[in-house]
This record gives sequence, C-alpha cells and structure tokens, in this order.
Amino acid sequence: MPFTPRALALPATVPFVGPEALERRFGRPFVARLGANESVFGPSPKVAEAMARAAAESWAYGDPEHHDLKAAIAAHHGLTPENIVVGEGIDGLLGLLVQLTIDPGDAVVTSLGAYPTFNYHVNGRGGRLDFVPYRDDREDPEALAARAQEIRPKLIYFANPDNPTGSRHDRQTVERLMEGVPDGSILVLDEAYADLAPAEALPEMSRLDPKVLRFRTFSKAYGMAGVRVAYAVGTPETTRHFDKVRNHFGVSRMAQAGALAALGDQGFLSETVGRIAAARDRLAEIARENGLTPLPSATNFVAIDCGRDGAFARAVLDGVLARGVFIRMPGVAPLDRLIRVTVGRDREMDLFAQALAGSLRDLAGA
Amino acid sequence: MPFTPRALALPATVPFVGPEALERRFGRPFVARLGANESVFGPSPKVAEAMARAAAESWAYGDPEHHDLKAAIAAHHGLTPENIVVGEGIDGLLGLLVQLTIDPGDAVVTSLGAYPTFNYHVNGRGGRLDFVPYRDDREDPEALAARAQEIRPKLIYFANPDNPTGSRHDRQTVERLMEGVPDGSILVLDEAYADLAPAEALPEMSRLDPKVLRFRTFSKAYGMAGVRVAYAVGTPETTRHFDKVRNHFGVSRMAQAGALAALGDQGFLSETVGRIAAARDRLAEIARENGLTPLPSATNFVAIDCGRDGAFARAVLDGVLARGVFIRMPGVAPLDRLIRVTVGRDREMDLFAQALAGSLRDLAGA
Repeated sequence: MPFTPRALALPATVPFVGPEALERRFGRPFVARLGANESVFGPSPKVAEAMARAAAESWAYGDPEHHDLKAAIAAHHGLTPENIVVGEGIDGLLGLLVQLTIDPGDAVVTSLGAYPTFNYHVNGRGGRLDFVPYRDDREDPEALAARAQEIRPKLIYFANPDNPTGSRHDRQTVERLMEGVPDGSILVLDEAYADLAPAEALPEMSRLDPKVLRFRTFSKAYGMAGVRVAYAVGTPETTRHFDKVRNHFGVSRMAQAGALAALGDQGFLSETVGRIAAARDRLAEIARENGLTPLPSATNFVAIDCGRDGAFARAVLDGVLARGVFIRMPGVAPLDRLIRVTVGRDREMDLFAQALAGSLRDLAGA
Repeated sequence: MPFTPRALALPATVPFVGPEALERRFGRPFVARLGANESVFGPSPKVAEAMARAAAESWAYGDPEHHDLKAAIAAHHGLTPENIVVGEGIDGLLGLLVQLTIDPGDAVVTSLGAYPTFNYHVNGRGGRLDFVPYRDDREDPEALAARAQEIRPKLIYFANPDNPTGSRHDRQTVERLMEGVPDGSILVLDEAYADLAPAEALPEMSRLDPKVLRFRTFSKAYGMAGVRVAYAVGTPETTRHFDKVRNHFGVSRMAQAGALAALGDQGFLSETVGRIAAARDRLAEIARENGLTPLPSATNFVAIDCGRDGAFARAVLDGVLARGVFIRMPGVAPLDRLIRVTVGRDREMDLFAQALAGSLRDLAGA
C-alpha cells in the first residue's frame, strides 16, 4: 500500500467523539446537548436569512477569495483583508498551519490537556509534541515561554480563554507571551472564546506580529458551529502562505454569507454574550449546590471540579450521560478531576441540575 | 520564520481564479456564469428544504461520523458505510489522500492538462508530478498504465468522464486500468461527472479494489457546488486511513442534510441529467454554427475546439468574457486550443451564442 509509514502508524482515535455517536450507542437522543461548547442560543435571525438566500444560490461555488467576508472581518477589527485568512473552522486553519510549518520531527509546544485537535493535526504531520503542565488549572504562559526558548519549537499553542478549563489570562500576560516568541516560532493564539471574554483579557487586534497568528471563530458566541467558518489574523508575511495550500472552494457559500451577516449584527452578539454570562452564573450555582467547585469561566462553558480523582469525575460524567445530558471532560490528569458543561437555556440547565444531582446521589449510595 | 522550505517555495498561484475575482477586475457582474461546471439547474427543492431545516440547527456541529449520509450513500451503491468517506468536496478528499500517501519526492502520474487542483495538492506536499500526454483530446489510459508500471507512483490520477475535455472511456477500458495498478500505487478515479455519463462508461460500484479509490460529488449533476460535499468509495483497508487525518467536523450540518436529501430525490437527478443533455446538444450546435468543433461530452460542459493555437483560443475566450459570459479554457498545449463552456438554461445559451459570435467577429476583423 502506498500510505506513508507515518500515516500507517497514526492511531484511529479521533479528537472528539460526537454526541450523535453516543446517542447511537445509548439508543436514544440526548435531552440536552451541553458537551461541545456550541451555543444553544443560536445565530442571529439575520444569519438565518442570509444563509437561506445563499442556499438558493448554492448551485454555484462560493467566492474562493472570500473577498466580502475578509473585508468585513478586517473592517470589524480595524485591519486590512491581507491580515485575514478565512477557513473551515479553526480546526481547518490549524491543519493548514501545521501543513505549512511542520516537517516530521519538528517540535511543537503546548499545554498538557489543551486542545486535542491541534495535537491531532501535529501528529498527523509527524510533529513532535512537547507538553508544559497546567498550573492551578490555567495554562502557564511563563512556563510555555521558557520551554519555547529552550527547544525553539515551530509552533507554540496557547488558548485565551482556555478550553477545557474556561480560564483566561490578562492582556499584559498574553502580550508578554507574544513578545517572547523565539525567532523561527509562531505563537498559535487560539481565541475561539474571545467574544465571551472581558476586554482586559485580549491584546488589541492592531498589535500585529509576524510571529503570532490569532484564531477567531463563528462557532462559539456567534452560534454557528455547524456552519464551519473561522479566521486567522496575522501579518501578510505570515497569512499569505495559507493561499498556497488551502482548499480554495472549501468555505461554503452559506458559510460566507452567514458569517458576513453575523458580523453585521453585533447587537445580537452582545445579547448572546449577556445570556451566556447569566447561564454561566447559574451553572456555577448548580455546581455549588451539589457540593462541587465551579472554576471561573470566560467562555460559554464551566469546568466543574469534582474534587476527587479522574475515575470519580468519569463516574459523575457517566451518570450525567446516562440521564440523557451530553457533557464532556478532559482526558488528562490533573485536569481529569473536572467535568466540562456548556451553558444552555433554563430548561437545559434544569436538566443538567437534575442529572448531576442524580449522578452524585448514585455515587454516594454506591 | 518557521515555514518549511517546501512551503516557502510553493507558488502563490491558485488552481482556479473564481468568477467573483474576474467580476471585481471587470467592475461588473457576469450575465452568465458558464465557467465552473456548476449546474444552473440547481439542486432538488427537497435539498433546499432539508438545508433550511438544517440551517435552523446549525448552532450544533454536524455529525463527525457522517453516519446517516454514509449509510445512504452505501445503500445507493449497494455497498456498506465502511466503503465510504465523506469530505468537503472532491478537492478536500484529494488533499487528504495526498497527505496520507505522499512524502516529499514521491512520484505521482497524471495527464498533462488534467485537473489542476489535484496537482496543487501534490505540489503542496512536495510530491513529484509525472505527466502523460492526452491522446486525441482524451486521457490515454494505456499510456498511464505503462508509465505507472515504469515509475511505480504512489498515485495515478484518471478522470472518467474527463475534465477539461468532457471525454469518457468505456467500462472495459477503465476496468483494465483498475486491474493494472501496480502494488504500492492507488488509482485515483475521479468520477465527478459520473452521474452525467452513460452507464457503459462506468465500472460497477461493487467492483472494489484496495488499490482504487473512486470519487463522487454532489457539486455537479446534483447541483450543490457551493455546499461542499463529496465522497470517496473504496475498500475499508484504504478508506479507514482518512479518519486519521480528516477535519472531523468539517462537513457542515447543512451539507450533510442536503446531500442526504439529494440522494433521496433520484427523480430530480434524472430530470436534471436530461436537461443537461439537451443543453449540451444546443451548445454543440452553437459551436458548429460559429464554425468551431465541439468535442463529444459526457459531462455538464462542452469543450469547443477553436481550431487554431492557444493564443487564438485565449483571444476567443477574452472576447466572450468581455461580453459578460464567464467561461474557462485549459492552460496547457495542445488542450489550449479549446474553450470550455458549462451548459446553462436557454437564456444563458443565447447569451453565450451572442458572445461567441461577437468575439469571433472581432477577431475576424482584427
């Protein structure tokens, strides 16, 4: 077979098992879907209208240059279209970046327990992952910077706010990390949850650096996870390389139109951010009512410390799943003390509260 | 910078300039869009309905396992879901296949003038392209097979029906090519236009071989180019590797729902195929009326031989573009005697007829 030895050696495991696969396994649908950090509040009605119009035109390929969308994103951030790369979700953009930078054996630094899909892409191209531990349930930017100086990796991954903990650092800390990127490295600043973070967590977008790429998405606060559209922000000397390898017609006509409409309805975004913040407080309250500790969150989910080991958190999670509520948990210690719950509407929060109480009750009785 | 030397050396050119980019250059929209082999007849109304429903659910990621769509595709072909890989268009699937098989320097055989996006992916991973010439404006399967025996490439690309000529071979010829694939090679059988070809052009789908992958799409006859969904068919020992590198959430919720609905409306597909065949005859007639030679076509486009060199065909094409009708042409001799025109409705065929006559009149007077 002509597959490369690297491809043959790759594991068949996937970064995330979808809730649909679990539903098929359980033989029934979930009553609440709170495990994938999607936004049950959905996109703006204007997005729905724009996508419906685009659907009628979807006999035609979307604009491979993403001209209008890039212009709108650039204007939104006070940048130029040359600073923007649009792609099929942050996952798709991360895959392209890894393709552009990683030869087999090249080093990459990330945090132990951070975004598994980034690792998946690095492994897929034969990169060598180097892990820095979390510190007090947050990424440790100083340790990442120090490790980067030491091993001079091609890529340094840092999410702010972070998934799966929900934590965030402040602007000054992130800026120090940006300034300390060694020559020959790129800082992958994953800001999927930026729209949900307080302003003081985020460096100004005007602060461009050829050694930094920032990733934003329409999947989280904008409520468009199933549509598949995201973007990277950087200097033209970095962004231009994506044009050499990307799937030019890969971003659908509906995705481009929907993202454009989403950007144009910042009022809806503000409302959603408010609703998510309120639901986050509710979720933290539910955790406390059950004797568990919610971690502070600057995202649309709350990581809940179950207070014991990974086996216990897994048991709590299994009990919640068995009650029809889809949630997830980190796979790596010490983060595997946590379960991760996406915020929902009142109805979903109620269902989670019942499921969590039931699961803990079962475990107490066991 | 951390980009690989290969990435830095890649050209900034793209496989296809989009019609939107040409419109921006000309400063006005095209009156007819006949250059990208899209289907102006669009998708089934049932697809539109299914996508509208899916749009309302697009706050959630699509099923990363594509369970329902794979099951439906498998049933459609009398196969099992393990034979099917779903991806973001054939372009996306070709990129994955190249990632799985090509290390820098690995050989790939294709025809000189065949699908440029395949070559783009091979170049993007440092593969070494080896070209076999077309013969009488068709791919030359015997020469491809002979060349494959000689250099033992990782991949052999063959499109049936072919783009950009519109030609097709018969089942027996394709089967001989399938049987002659050397060990260590995979035949990339691009059947994007299969739904438009006569049955005698296509090997049975039940004829599976670990050394053959067949690619089908919803972009052409199904009229869903802007939606981005296609699939590959092969044996599990070949298809399973895609799971190791694909963008698991890359196929949007709307794309999965739309493709499922499209498969379910074979009546609409038959009607469309009939309309395309009629329009193809009309297009051939237009070519002949203008003293040019249409090539036989088993696709949704007609390649028209302008009868002279590439510079002349380019001038004919420029005159058609200047009249607001978007068409394309192959970039490589001797195929660059051709212009390639996608079929349209009567209105678009009339506009093309006028534009072609006008362009030729200008050239005759020049």
